[in-house]
Amino acid sequence: MSDYVRNLWYLGAWDHEVPEGGMLSRTLLDEKWLIASLSDGTYAMLADRCPHRFVPLSKGRLEQDVIHCPYHGLGFDRTGACVHNPFPAPPPAHARARTMPVVHRHRGLWFWPGDPDQADPASIPDFAFVDRADMQRSRLVIQGHYELVTDNLMDLTHAEFLHVASFGVNGSIFSGRQSVVTDESGAIWNNWDMEAVTPPMWAAPMLGEGDRVDQWLHMRWHAPAAMALAVGLARAGTGRKDMVVPPMLNPHIITPETRTSSHYFYDHEATPEAEALARQVFVEEDEPMIEAAQQALGEQDFWAARPAILETDAAAIRARRRLMQLRRAEAGAEEKAILAEAG
Amino acid sequence: MSDYVRNLWYLGAWDHEVPEGGMLSRTLLDEKWLIASLSDGTYAMLADRCPHRFVPLSKGRLEQDVIHCPYHGLGFDRTGACVHNPFPAPPPAHARARTMPVVHRHRGLWFWPGDPDQADPASIPDFAFVDRADMQRSRLVIQGHYELVTDNLMDLTHAEFLHVASFGVNGSIFSGRQSVVTDESGAIWNNWDMEAVTPPMWAAPMLGEGDRVDQWLHMRWHAPAAMALAVGLARAGTGRKDMVVPPMLNPHIITPETRTSSHYFYDHEATPEAEALARQVFVEEDEPMIEAAQQALGEQDFWAARPAILETDAAAIRARRRLMQLRRAEAGAEEKAILAEAG
Amino acid sequence: MSDYVRNLWYLGAWDHEVPEGGMLSRTLLDEKWLIASLSDGTYAMLADRCPHRFVPLSKGRLEQDVIHCPYHGLGFDRTGACVHNPFPAPPPAHARARTMPVVHRHRGLWFWPGDPDQADPASIPDFAFVDRADMQRSRLVIQGHYELVTDNLMDLTHAEFLHVASFGVNGSIFSGRQSVVTDESGAIWNNWDMEAVTPPMWAAPMLGEGDRVDQWLHMRWHAPAAMALAVGLARAGTGRKDMVVPPMLNPHIITPETRTSSHYFYDHEATPEAEALARQVFVEEDEPMIEAAQQALGEQDFWAARPAILETDAAAIRARRRLMQLRRAEAGAEEKAILAEAG
Ligand code: FES
Ligand code: FES
Ligand code: FES
Repeated sequence: MSDYVRNLWYLGAWDHEVPEGGMLSRTLLDEKWLIASLSDGTYAMLADRCPHRFVPLSKGRLEQDVIHCPYHGLGFDRTGACVHNPFPAPPPAHARARTMPVVHRHRGLWFWPGDPDQADPASIPDFAFVDRADMQRSRLVIQGHYELVTDNLMDLTHAEFLHVASFGVNGSIFSGRQSVVTDESGAIWNNWDMEAVTPPMWAAPMLGEGDRVDQWLHMRWHAPAAMALAVGLARAGTGRKDMVVPPMLNPHIITPETRTSSHYFYDHEATPEAEALARQVFVEEDEPMIEAAQQALGEQDFWAARPAILETDAAAIRARRRLMQLRRAEAGAEEKAILAEAG
Repeated sequence: MSDYVRNLWYLGAWDHEVPEGGMLSRTLLDEKWLIASLSDGTYAMLADRCPHRFVPLSKGRLEQDVIHCPYHGLGFDRTGACVHNPFPAPPPAHARARTMPVVHRHRGLWFWPGDPDQADPASIPDFAFVDRADMQRSRLVIQGHYELVTDNLMDLTHAEFLHVASFGVNGSIFSGRQSVVTDESGAIWNNWDMEAVTPPMWAAPMLGEGDRVDQWLHMRWHAPAAMALAVGLARAGTGRKDMVVPPMLNPHIITPETRTSSHYFYDHEATPEAEALARQVFVEEDEPMIEAAQQALGEQDFWAARPAILETDAAAIRARRRLMQLRRAEAGAEEKAILAEAG
Repeated sequence: MSDYVRNLWYLGAWDHEVPEGGMLSRTLLDEKWLIASLSDGTYAMLADRCPHRFVPLSKGRLEQDVIHCPYHGLGFDRTGACVHNPFPAPPPAHARARTMPVVHRHRGLWFWPGDPDQADPASIPDFAFVDRADMQRSRLVIQGHYELVTDNLMDLTHAEFLHVASFGVNGSIFSGRQSVVTDESGAIWNNWDMEAVTPPMWAAPMLGEGDRVDQWLHMRWHAPAAMALAVGLARAGTGRKDMVVPPMLNPHIITPETRTSSHYFYDHEATPEAEALARQVFVEEDEPMIEAAQQALGEQDFWAARPAILETDAAAIRARRRLMQLRRAEAGAEEKAILAEAG
């Protein structure tokens, strides 16, 4: 069974990461791919490995939407076909670079590693909210399996331990009410709602001495690991009407780099302070824990390691189960297809 | 068959390595363990891996003899039981951390990785002599299998080649008499006795011009790799009565860190010179040889590499054979237990 | 089937790399070997691994043509026999170091990793031309399988892409005529001949404005990977008689270090500029491509990766086929020998 569900959209890059008219090389789902920015404003995605002698095409040149290999100069178009041979012989027809469907949406480039015929852009999850001028989109790499990162994000109770210094959540989650919901779109929500609690430290300046607040942390998950976090803070007793700050909505989108490392796509306000805070939370607080969990697991499967299951885990476990079902369904479909062919 | 004999005492740390009321994390026999110093003066040893999401418990807090996980705050007591859940649900009964018996003796913390019911502290080998105020206990890690370190220590002839610069043994071992003895306690002794030989360089200032000495090097071995070296130097012809310096007795205790690296516990006089000499001998002279042997072997088994056997090797080989017998006995006992259950 | 053809001569070192009366340690075909310079002017080659405890003999001393192990002092002669034991016991007869035939020829030390009885020095390929006082012989290690380096050298079309900055070939190869020839000695030649083309940049100072030249690049290959490159440049229309510079002849001899790295033996004029140019070409231009190809292949076999085959590849592919045949022949011979023994 493959490590990855293949018939799903994954985020490959923020659009600003691919230079206009240029190429980006990135390891995704254990393979090297290049994302090319073409002259008509669309993008192409090719295996970053020349079919001749396997060197990275991304080290070559992109000219008139043709990618020229840096080693012996073969040229490939957006379909992966070899369309140019600099030496006196026709381009070899059998030299094809693999490709994947790629769609530019919500400031990101989404790719579909499965059957191209099933790649419907309508199923890209809604991240329209990321398209805001005052926000900066970033990415970092976490040295852990992407489902360990999902565990982290779908169980925010860890904020009371890991993020005390950065977020100063003040113990309010301890008295929160958790609800785990699967909506009609198939998204899994992990919602924490706190009523009339002590405000987090960062909100104190906007409130009077001793004021209490209603607070909510709602995390939405789409397979494989595209998450959105909604945070709200309202003066207590106002039915969530009198907001202390405008509601916040942020992407936390994870894409496997390898079986033991993950791209983490996020955003933050376009200020140095916000950038520094985001890095503190992700790099100094979350990353060492996720990496330690990965190192402890090593090659061992998550379930084989017999993890203890907590009530606060419910949403994370539901997401893991969903992925397991999807992987099994794909493995079953593949088996059927092979049997039908053999039939 | 396991790489390690499990029903034996191993030295995990010198006692000063564990902060009072704190924790030490250490890789022992290929696994991460923590040693916790408890309020009653005893110690506990838990797998350094939270049963929830596998992060190191040693990165959390030890409070009132309960170890609190740094990730989501579960608390574990000395028995490995989960006794605290910070969120409104009972501590999960199935969340148990593994433990090992640990005993504080001879300034060290000795652990028993096998069947706890067989863990009798009376079988800890006698290292009472290490408890001396003028000695400093140290540890270093050698990049080699622990039996390669034993080979080194149980065959001191290498001193004539490797330690000429440091110890200046002056060729006396070449004319020594070796005897290999197994005593009634099961300890294996490799004894070198030199009579009326040129003294080692370091002893020259304490002797007259041309004086000769009787010298002995007696190394005692207990399984798995706990060694003690007795060195004596007496004026020749005095029946070992007129000692040039008081008899010396030092621990050389080896504990596997992984299959290819070893903790080396030793001591030396509490002076910078003695520390520097010990490091020269162990780090600059012995370590490169042992590491080179390890690299040459790689994944290959020692016996499969068909080592040449020398007479001077006799004690080292006897120790290797003993370990092999113990490993086989444990493998046999395990097999019997499985068959009896199946029976 | 072994990764290597064993009944062939390989270049192990240039002669100046082995200090007179000293030893050189080198990894060749995945194993550590030492080359010793003996008192009669010949050389010996022993496995650089003591048969006693596997440490590198090359870290010991070479005295009167006997190699003394640095650990416990056993001494080995050029045949690998143990001829000295410093302790009172005879040298152990079963302690033998492995050896290989080694021949000093063409300023290099050539070894034969196969059946010693078949090692005929007459089959060392002719590199007599390297013995020139104005040339400096060098070596570097390339992080790629030796056949990937052969691919590079047996298909010089890559110069038009990779070596534009260094050699400035000016596009002349694009209009060249390629011929692939196997001569009566079994050598495979990949010849490029260009007539009346624009000269390369470095030759411009020696020519008049607008002069055209005949140019040739002839690469000769002997198994496993011993290549020689002949380069010529003559004024066009003189039937290759009026040479712009004297004909050039250089060794490009590749010896596997491991399955994924290669020793590259080459030479260059004994000037700092020539040395710098050679390093630019090999280290900055060729090496990254070969290394990238190696990394893309990983553990995958070259043919299993289904490389596209180009016409310009013909010689490289012919060399690969020859090695495949040789490997198969050796595997078959081995099988026969085993069956005969069993018979
Ligand atoms: S490796 Fe790409 S054209 Fe040769
Ligand atoms: S990992 Fe320890 S409580 Fe969650
Ligand atoms: S390792 Fe060479 S003599 Fe012992």
